[in-house]
Amino acid sequence: MSNSIPTREQDYSEWYNALVEKAGLAEHSAVRGCMVIKPYGYAIWEKMQAALDKMFKDTGHVNAYFPLLIPKSFFSKEASHVKGFAKECAIVTHYRLKTAKDGSLVVDETAKLEEELVIRPTSETIIWSSYKKWIESYRDLPLLINQWANIVRWEMRTRLFLRTAEFLWQEGHTAHATAEEAIEETKKMLDVYADFAENWLALPVFKGVKSESERFAGALDTYCIEAMMQDGKALQAGTSHFLGQNFAKAFDVQFSDKEGKRDFVWATSWGVSTRLMGALVMAHSDDQGLILPPKLAPIQVVIVPAYKDVAELSEINVVARNIQNELKNKGVSVKYDDDDTKRPGWKYAEYELKGVPIRITIGKRDIAANKLEMVRRDTKEKEVISLLGAADLVVSTLDLIQENLYKKALKFKNERTFVVDSWDDFEKKIEQGFVAAHWDGTAETEEKIKELTKATIRCIPLDQIKESGKCVLSGQPSSGRVVFARAY
Amino acid sequence: MSNSIPTREQDYSEWYNALVEKAGLAEHSAVRGCMVIKPYGYAIWEKMQAALDKMFKDTGHVNAYFPLLIPKSFFSKEASHVKGFAKECAIVTHYRLKTAKDGSLVVDETAKLEEELVIRPTSETIIWSSYKKWIESYRDLPLLINQWANIVRWEMRTRLFLRTAEFLWQEGHTAHATAEEAIEETKKMLDVYADFAENWLALPVFKGVKSESERFAGALDTYCIEAMMQDGKALQAGTSHFLGQNFAKAFDVQFSDKEGKRDFVWATSWGVSTRLMGALVMAHSDDQGLILPPKLAPIQVVIVPAYKDVAELSEINVVARNIQNELKNKGVSVKYDDDDTKRPGWKYAEYELKGVPIRITIGKRDIAANKLEMVRRDTKEKEVISLLGAADLVVSTLDLIQENLYKKALKFKNERTFVVDSWDDFEKKIEQGFVAAHWDGTAETEEKIKELTKATIRCIPLDQIKESGKCVLSGQPSSGRVVFARAY
Repeated sequence: MSNSIPTREQDYSEWYNALVEKAGLAEHSAVRGCMVIKPYGYAIWEKMQAALDKMFKDTGHVNAYFPLLIPKSFFSKEASHVKGFAKECAIVTHYRLKTAKDGSLVVDETAKLEEELVIRPTSETIIWSSYKKWIESYRDLPLLINQWANIVRWEMRTRLFLRTAEFLWQEGHTAHATAEEAIEETKKMLDVYADFAENWLALPVFKGVKSESERFAGALDTYCIEAMMQDGKALQAGTSHFLGQNFAKAFDVQFSDKEGKRDFVWATSWGVSTRLMGALVMAHSDDQGLILPPKLAPIQVVIVPAYKDVAELSEINVVARNIQNELKNKGVSVKYDDDDTKRPGWKYAEYELKGVPIRITIGKRDIAANKLEMVRRDTKEKEVISLLGAADLVVSTLDLIQENLYKKALKFKNERTFVVDSWDDFEKKIEQGFVAAHWDGTAETEEKIKELTKATIRCIPLDQIKESGKCVLSGQPSSGRVVFARAY
Repeated sequence: MSNSIPTREQDYSEWYNALVEKAGLAEHSAVRGCMVIKPYGYAIWEKMQAALDKMFKDTGHVNAYFPLLIPKSFFSKEASHVKGFAKECAIVTHYRLKTAKDGSLVVDETAKLEEELVIRPTSETIIWSSYKKWIESYRDLPLLINQWANIVRWEMRTRLFLRTAEFLWQEGHTAHATAEEAIEETKKMLDVYADFAENWLALPVFKGVKSESERFAGALDTYCIEAMMQDGKALQAGTSHFLGQNFAKAFDVQFSDKEGKRDFVWATSWGVSTRLMGALVMAHSDDQGLILPPKLAPIQVVIVPAYKDVAELSEINVVARNIQNELKNKGVSVKYDDDDTKRPGWKYAEYELKGVPIRITIGKRDIAANKLEMVRRDTKEKEVISLLGAADLVVSTLDLIQENLYKKALKFKNERTFVVDSWDDFEKKIEQGFVAAHWDGTAETEEKIKELTKATIRCIPLDQIKESGKCVLSGQPSSGRVVFARAY
């Protein structure tokens, strides 16, 4: 990678920013806080979308699309929801521009909306205003809908993928006849997210529930998956909310059960966003560039010819295209880079930067020996392998890389998660990673810890062991450990 | 279909509106002019997206994502572009709400944007402001990018799918070194659209170029495909624009050619939208409901059991699930509706309304005879067929239906396109369909014809025969016929 980019050691934060731009994932746009997702980054996002979409459909959900613009009054209907989102809304007030006398383009003040419209920061309100029309009886339940959409939250400090004024996401919104069923759905979708994180992103996660102060505005419970980045900080990678009857009450959505009794509907919502792109980069990549899990890599294998002259190249072309076709037939996405204007060394660095999982180099001498060189991006191991059976070996190596990235991340997560019982230790260990410590359950202590260390409760783990202990800060009784970390 | 819906004969316009809602495709939302695309409608749109996306990628394009919000000043940079879009823009002026003293939610006037942002009505300006950073030399060209996005145009009179304040679309934006190459791209993408219309929507189209007055704001030439609806009116189904160097000049995007000479880049843009959903409904459906081309039908085959009691049903279940699996293995999307709370007659009407291409009914007697009943949605033909080989026959019948819909639409288009030489005839025939007539090439005559008949020039056909003639209205010389119609 160009030496204008710092190493992770030098400046982890700047390493991330520079890598996202240099690798062609995304860049800042002319609009404050809004990013352009560039083709290479978008290709990864498309692969995430396809995998998630299939998982949603396999669990019985269907897609739909609801309006971008939400009447301001809808927000007021759910009290805590408006508190959570009113401060970061983009608001549409007019619907026409005009040319002023001096020739400049100005807002036409005569085209003012009667009621302002808010660009969706999340869609609970507009969706539940529709559900009111769709739900009449238990026969209409459960209603299991997902939406792929863009979202705007007027964040003040933004970073590519991690926090942007506009981002892309999916939001599931489901309606159920009972609280139990809704809670089951909330947990099921958390499991889908954890499954996706582990098996696609190669990212082990903590599954848990948020403390009250970190809950989604309008939820009774917020479940989350939390992943550890290479600097030991946490990244919330997905959330699943049990909304109780809050939105059903706000929009008066009732149903008749089999006995004709009327009750409000129970709700969930759940989402993951282009933040996952940031998690992917921060979890696996190194000082040379991206390291992509093969399942999400737009190019899984690149073949680079090493040659002296055109005669050599045309000889290599035949062999390279053969293996390219063999790999394609096995479902591998493979690029043969025979661009004659770039040297092999330049190409090696470029595909390292781009995180292509396997690079194959073919030279004239390799062909004579019926060999080729295979280089793994994750371990940088070089291996000279036989042409015969090379395609099968490449395919199984892609699986190995996927597995290795997960194992490496899991090892790191385990090594950097500290069980801590004293405040001294807490302050030391929180610099290095996650801390599992007793907490007295109060918002005051939570807030105090945040002030002292910048660490927040990432989650109360779902697999928490019930054990009596003393709060790491206050010394008050606690019934189990929760996970603290500094977070993105 | 419920008799609350008029027939096409009674009220074509109301038939369309009611059908879109009753079949569960879309409905109006609480926000003026914005629709909710319901799951069944969205499932069709997803199939359209998948097919188009593959066609774009097969022709060398990649996807990316650009911001929803565009600085107002960007619009002023291309003079005709701003004229075309300034009158129908949703404008963001503030970024925060607050609770007023009386407890109501109001816009926080202290959170006013320095420069207003426009919700994209199309993305040429924001995209070309990025291209300026991406294009430096001929090596960066061509740049072939597509975006799937939502769009807002503040239309005053809206109709589900056909004209809505917010809609979904794709927009291709390409950059080229020469005018010839850009024109070639413009035409290539028009061909992709025509191919998609014919082979997926089963919709024959006129391919042509717009007259100056119907051109896209900022284009040198707008190519289009125009389809005929069952009432003889035209629906513009896709457009492809040759933008010349207009946007490159507006955003100062220059490149160096191989000799180091600097020049402005040549551009195209092209798009289709959820309007295609409207075209699909209006072109093929009948008074009983939707008729969907099998390639775009979310459910291609439905199996309905006809039974007296539970014992019969469980016998039918075995046979039905066998054929369901057989069809699934052949890639057919098939639903077995064994819902015991609904009668077969109700189900027949429901799947007719939903436009499912083939319905299979299985009763006890059918099983005894090793038969089943197959009903085509397009022709309503019933056929009793042998269970043995039924799956293959269903698959080939799906192909026949796709073909038949296209042929039927083509026959209709041919019958309702009239070659006309007198003004009398023009006025008569324009009531029934498209009119191919000589035109003197002036905007005045075009405008006059529109005033007199509401018909516009849909396109100057690409296969126009050069022949001398006299303008159907003015009698002035003309070099070929153009296509007139009333349009959606």
